[in-house]
Amino acid sequence: MAKSEKAKMLANEQYLNTDSEIALDRRHTRLLINEFNQVVKTDAAAGQKILKQLFAKTGAKIDIQPDFHCDYGYTVEIGENFFANYNCVLIDVGKITIGDNCLFGPGVHIYSVNHPLNPELRNANYEFPKPVTIGNNVWIGGSAVIVPGVTLGDNVTVAAGAVVTKSFGNNVVIGGNPARVLKAI
Amino acid sequence: MAKSEKAKMLANEQYLNTDSEIALDRRHTRLLINEFNQVVKTDAAAGQKILKQLFAKTGAKIDIQPDFHCDYGYTVEIGENFFANYNCVLIDVGKITIGDNCLFGPGVHIYSVNHPLNPELRNANYEFPKPVTIGNNVWIGGSAVIVPGVTLGDNVTVAAGAVVTKSFGNNVVIGGNPARVLKAI
Amino acid sequence: MAKSEKAKMLANEQYLNTDSEIALDRRHTRLLINEFNQVVKTDAAAGQKILKQLFAKTGAKIDIQPDFHCDYGYTVEIGENFFANYNCVLIDVGKITIGDNCLFGPGVHIYSVNHPLNPELRNANYEFPKPVTIGNNVWIGGSAVIVPGVTLGDNVTVAAGAVVTKSFGNNVVIGGNPARVLKAI
Repeated sequence: MAKSEKAKMLANEQYLNTDSEIALDRRHTRLLINEFNQVVKTDAAAGQKILKQLFAKTGAKIDIQPDFHCDYGYTVEIGENFFANYNCVLIDVGKITIGDNCLFGPGVHIYSVNHPLNPELRNANYEFPKPVTIGNNVWIGGSAVIVPGVTLGDNVTVAAGAVVTKSFGNNVVIGGNPARVLKAI
Repeated sequence: MAKSEKAKMLANEQYLNTDSEIALDRRHTRLLINEFNQVVKTDAAAGQKILKQLFAKTGAKIDIQPDFHCDYGYTVEIGENFFANYNCVLIDVGKITIGDNCLFGPGVHIYSVNHPLNPELRNANYEFPKPVTIGNNVWIGGSAVIVPGVTLGDNVTVAAGAVVTKSFGNNVVIGGNPARVLKAI
Repeated sequence: MAKSEKAKMLANEQYLNTDSEIALDRRHTRLLINEFNQVVKTDAAAGQKILKQLFAKTGAKIDIQPDFHCDYGYTVEIGENFFANYNCVLIDVGKITIGDNCLFGPGVHIYSVNHPLNPELRNANYEFPKPVTIGNNVWIGGSAVIVPGVTLGDNVTVAAGAVVTKSFGNNVVIGGNPARVLKAI
């Protein structure tokens, strides 16, 4: 039997994002996200309950401020004690793994999918999942962007507005566009 | 008869943004945008229908994720097969022309208006429209910003988080703040 | 009597952000913000009325486009004739002072609080307020970020997408990441 497009997506292989099974998953997630962004505005506990349905894994405590967006949720694993401020976005086609005690400022975006640079392939709706991994105790400053394929180690601080285009190890402050090490911690 | 402020705006001349005719247009657009951002959360087809009312021109297929914002809509012409992800913003005072097969990541902002650097003129609510033109097959990565007056050629890829402050021709990947050519395609 | 956590916060001292008195304040503000973001979509005058309740001080005329977010509001003082476009965010733990005739593009973020770089202190929910001061006639371009502790003088223009990591005096255009002087006005 041929591999389904969803199976390819989950295996980080080039896949077709217009596939109907995958589109149905996005539709299901959209309804959960709509509900989350509505209820969290007045009831943080109800919001947390939806997040635990949405993601593949969370800690006991997870707090995300509205409006939050992601496409699937089932590709996202988050550790204990997570906080994300207003307007964060996870484009979560590839797996996004977030460690314990992570803190995201407002407007943080993480993308775990690339489109082909070749316009013909891109227009044909092919995409490449590229997982993103964030260590423990990572603080990502507001408006920072993490691009596909990046791994950040433990205790990393990402300065506000940074664009993180490559991976970094433990115990560093990074910032700028593209981000580079600003100092060791 | 004196030229109306709206006629000046549409002719890319300095105009007064507090003019009542223009304010009424913004009010009309706001109501459409409100409706769009609400219905698209559960009904993509109904959302597409509103977008076709909103913009001066679209292709048969147009898909914009919520929440989207623009001020007028009638200054925006978009080609076939357009997709814009979550939280994109067009400040569309001057004309914004987008070619076929363009793809915007989440949080892309395009601005086609400048305010005067002179504080007295700025405080008096004068503005300068500066059209923005995006070619065919352009992929603008998430959180990128395109400033007033920029033209991008065909097959351009704008890296995530780029701030595009000048024009670029065909077949290049650009990125950084300010954006520069990273490679040819 | 021991100083309350809220008193420490208001005195720009290290404080505990999980304190229940402070959490209740955020909850109160959230309800006002929810109402603002809803009503301003159809009724600008009603929106303005809520903003005057929300902030410590405003001018007679204040216009903020949806969706706007801040945490407290009572730490924010704004002068006459303020405009902020779509999706602006003030993380307003420390005082945020904005002069007369200021203009914010869409997606401007100002943060007046820092978290400790030390992961143990950060995970224990300690924070440091760092006030931000914006002069008169300041235009902050879209998607710009102002980090904790920054002061901007009068007549400053901040280019779109700038990340402002230090203070600047009067009459300059600044831009880039990190922002530097681009020209004098």
